[in-house]
Amino acid sequence: MNPQGCHVVGFKQPTPEELTHDFLWRIERQVPKPGEVVVFNRSHYEDVLIVRVHDLVPIEVWSNRYEQINDFEKRLINNGTHILKFFLYISKEEQLRRFKKRLEDPTKHWKISEADYKEREFWESYQEAYEDALSKCSTSEAPWYVIPSDQKWFRNLAVSKIIVETMKKLDIKFPEPTVNIEDIRRKYHKAVNKGKK
Amino acid sequence: MNPQGCHVVGFKQPTPEELTHDFLWRIERQVPKPGEVVVFNRSHYEDVLIVRVHDLVPIEVWSNRYEQINDFEKRLINNGTHILKFFLYISKEEQLRRFKKRLEDPTKHWKISEADYKEREFWESYQEAYEDALSKCSTSEAPWYVIPSDQKWFRNLAVSKIIVETMKKLDIKFPEPTVNIEDIRRKYHKAVNKGKK
Repeated sequence: MNPQGCHVVGFKQPTPEELTHDFLWRIERQVPKPGEVVVFNRSHYEDVLIVRVHDLVPIEVWSNRYEQINDFEKRLINNGTHILKFFLYISKEEQLRRFKKRLEDPTKHWKISEADYKEREFWESYQEAYEDALSKCSTSEAPWYVIPSDQKWFRNLAVSKIIVETMKKLDIKFPEPTVNIEDIRRKYHKAVNKGKK
Repeated sequence: MNPQGCHVVGFKQPTPEELTHDFLWRIERQVPKPGEVVVFNRSHYEDVLIVRVHDLVPIEVWSNRYEQINDFEKRLINNGTHILKFFLYISKEEQLRRFKKRLEDPTKHWKISEADYKEREFWESYQEAYEDALSKCSTSEAPWYVIPSDQKWFRNLAVSKIIVETMKKLDIKFPEPTVNIEDIRRKYHKAVNKGKK
């Protein structure tokens, strides 16, 4: 997509400033304005996934977040934003193959660390957390799409198709002119025909 | 370019908040971080162009800005940013042709207003203002490129070529791994060969 109307935001480990705010504060700051597409790489769902798996906040806190997320997304939608949520699912075996490739390919060395392997040990806890997030926060206005992603060609095709179909339905139009086009033409372009500028 | 590492920022008429700050404040907030490309559509140079032509601030204020701009750009460069400045020059006749096209093509109606024609009457003042900006702020570290732009194919070719050549010179490398790749391979991937995950 053309960077003029699209950009990508990655949500990493929250900064100290972000942590002083509620979990949706940093998300809110990145939502698109009309005409913009923003691709979120990770999102507020981390706060019911990794945060839950590693007990980073008490259960009383994260268990309230599903409703907060739904309310937040509903407000965005009511104000004209379209939300597509993709869960790119890869199998445990495929994940290991990808890690191995990163070790073998020097251009991918920077992507790997031992933490990636440690995190695999929590596979089942993640599965539970994902199940809850996907079922509690898949609303009719903002459904979750689970994309089988072991095959990158399939993942790319599926995601692209959903995006294209959604954008077609938007029926995007050019802005209406705020001026009288005919007036301007008569006023400024008659003169041209007579040889003036 | 891929929106993952590139986005476009348009600088429009300053907001009330932006006007309470000095003219470089809103620019500073948009400068790229390492690895990012930001395309500025208009910039801090408006503050020595339209601002000067229409006397929006006194001469004592705008005449000091050339030096402030040079100092600002020098700091960015000293801290690792590369700056390319393009002046896309079109002739007065070509500008009128483009305005006319906007009146004729309904998909371009939203782009035109009477203000565009009014602004043409200041062509000579703009020329003076541009001459000063281009000569006072074309430094060896951040030169201005004047791109003849009546022909869009030439404009696009010239700008692309300059960008590509600049990026090639950067000699961009992948980040160094922060871990011992060999250790990780031995620790986690021997097991795979034995049939374990």
